[in-house]
Amino acid sequence: MSERRPKLVGIGNALVDVLVNVDDATLERLGLEKGGMELVSQDQIWSIYDSLGPATESSGGSVANTVAHLAMNGVPCAYVGKVAEDTFGRIFDHDLASLGVETRLARSSDGTGTGRALVMITPDGQRTMCTFLGAAVSLNAADVAEQVPASCDIILIEGYLWDAPEGAALIAEAVSRAEAAGAKIAVTLSDAGCVQRHLDEMRRFVDQHCDILLANEAEASALARQTDIDAALDYVQETVALAAVTHSERGSTVLEGDLRATVAPQQVDKVVDTTGAGDAYAAGFLKRLLEGASPTEFGAEGGRLAAEVIQHVGARALSEPRAKAS
Amino acid sequence: MSERRPKLVGIGNALVDVLVNVDDATLERLGLEKGGMELVSQDQIWSIYDSLGPATESSGGSVANTVAHLAMNGVPCAYVGKVAEDTFGRIFDHDLASLGVETRLARSSDGTGTGRALVMITPDGQRTMCTFLGAAVSLNAADVAEQVPASCDIILIEGYLWDAPEGAALIAEAVSRAEAAGAKIAVTLSDAGCVQRHLDEMRRFVDQHCDILLANEAEASALARQTDIDAALDYVQETVALAAVTHSERGSTVLEGDLRATVAPQQVDKVVDTTGAGDAYAAGFLKRLLEGASPTEFGAEGGRLAAEVIQHVGARALSEPRAKAS
Repeated sequence: MSERRPKLVGIGNALVDVLVNVDDATLERLGLEKGGMELVSQDQIWSIYDSLGPATESSGGSVANTVAHLAMNGVPCAYVGKVAEDTFGRIFDHDLASLGVETRLARSSDGTGTGRALVMITPDGQRTMCTFLGAAVSLNAADVAEQVPASCDIILIEGYLWDAPEGAALIAEAVSRAEAAGAKIAVTLSDAGCVQRHLDEMRRFVDQHCDILLANEAEASALARQTDIDAALDYVQETVALAAVTHSERGSTVLEGDLRATVAPQQVDKVVDTTGAGDAYAAGFLKRLLEGASPTEFGAEGGRLAAEVIQHVGARALSEPRAKAS
Repeated sequence: MSERRPKLVGIGNALVDVLVNVDDATLERLGLEKGGMELVSQDQIWSIYDSLGPATESSGGSVANTVAHLAMNGVPCAYVGKVAEDTFGRIFDHDLASLGVETRLARSSDGTGTGRALVMITPDGQRTMCTFLGAAVSLNAADVAEQVPASCDIILIEGYLWDAPEGAALIAEAVSRAEAAGAKIAVTLSDAGCVQRHLDEMRRFVDQHCDILLANEAEASALARQTDIDAALDYVQETVALAAVTHSERGSTVLEGDLRATVAPQQVDKVVDTTGAGDAYAAGFLKRLLEGASPTEFGAEGGRLAAEVIQHVGARALSEPRAKAS
């Protein structure tokens, strides 16, 4: 690794996950597509929540989850996002900072609460989300300029950032920060629906600025405007220098230059909850990249972390007693 | 069962649990006795929280947990407690109401937040708590008079209620409500430290008003002013009509009149987190009592529900998809 600290800066929508078990009929009743993410208003998220069973709450956010996994695996990281001055904002900050992540959070003061994602887990372990972005939606270029540290190796952004009104501007600011730092830009595409919402912008961005692309099949296909996965992989390979496309229980494909390597999946006894699988994969991939390993090793470590996280409820690794306390 | 609805009314401190893994050294650093519960201020709970690792949040409260288990097992219940008009208050209400519990919550408007318990889980699965009572501390006799429904079979209170400034008065009100309804009074002793804090009052209460007593060894011994568990059981047997004393992994003793029956423990593969074991035991015990089963069956069902809850993180049963949604 280089001597830079932090190694990686993640920028994303700061969200607290509200995890609840549902059955398929509930998704149908709510008109939600399984596996997708829909943006909803504060009223809508409360109304859906009120119609569901008991929940547990834990910090989430796609890039935030990735950064949490990286920190737990010893990679120095910072996180930039926006929360409100409320209980969920404090919880979000604590859960990252207590892993050693340098939390650089802008604070919203417009009365909107910290963002939350209602994560509905079906018996097959799939997760379907309704997200109220809350304070996260007002993250802007000035916040990024103020919060992103001067030096790092990778700036990681998530597709969901394009959902913010100032998304394009804050992403442009992230790019100029990366250029100034000589850092690479990594993008995780977040969700096929999100890619479709911002297709032209995202394609232009990936083509012009993205060094490392992380996506699942549906997201890669949406970005490539292809229904055939091989054609989508062709597009990815032609467009970015380094990429991983995950295939759920069938492992992943790692692409770099002419290399297109299939990485076998990890064995998993029982899939409990796929929440955060892609985020964990990204962490393993970027960790081994930062360590100077080979591309197939990036994919193998991604698969290992993803396999771990889908065997319990929640998007982050189970927290072990940590040494920092004493 | 009788035709009364609800069958059982629980009155307790309404708390949201903040669950975090710690090691033994952390408990030492914090000067906390393993397995105990300490009352702390809002400043103290934040300061301890800030020194610990990532947490997850889920609704708790001793009697609230018992009522949640009862509702999940088909027993019509109501719950009386006090929360603030904040996010945790809404979460607390939702998590009980969504199980079908009739939530009858007083709302505090003095700016204190909803109460929370920092539940520190050590690798042996034991839980040690620091509790900030928040809004729960202002539960009073007028709230109880207003919220307890006119008809039920059992009113269940927790020892922790004595920690509130108006605890004695609100418990007296609960007794007169029970008398008016012809309902039995059940008491769960909560914590040995709590029993010691209020020993004289609790002994008088158990002697004069308690029909059903639920305790673990440490609590029963504290109440009996005995170090020998058999002597403590003698005291319990002489003092209340029906009781259960739990012995952790060694099962429980059920006492009724001259009967003193040992109930064997359930086999458990791995103890993950003992949070809520006593609350789950109480639910199984009271369920079979309400169904008119025999005392050893009360204890067996208590053991079954407790065994279930200690095999995962959190105080309540894992939520399954529920039919209410469709």
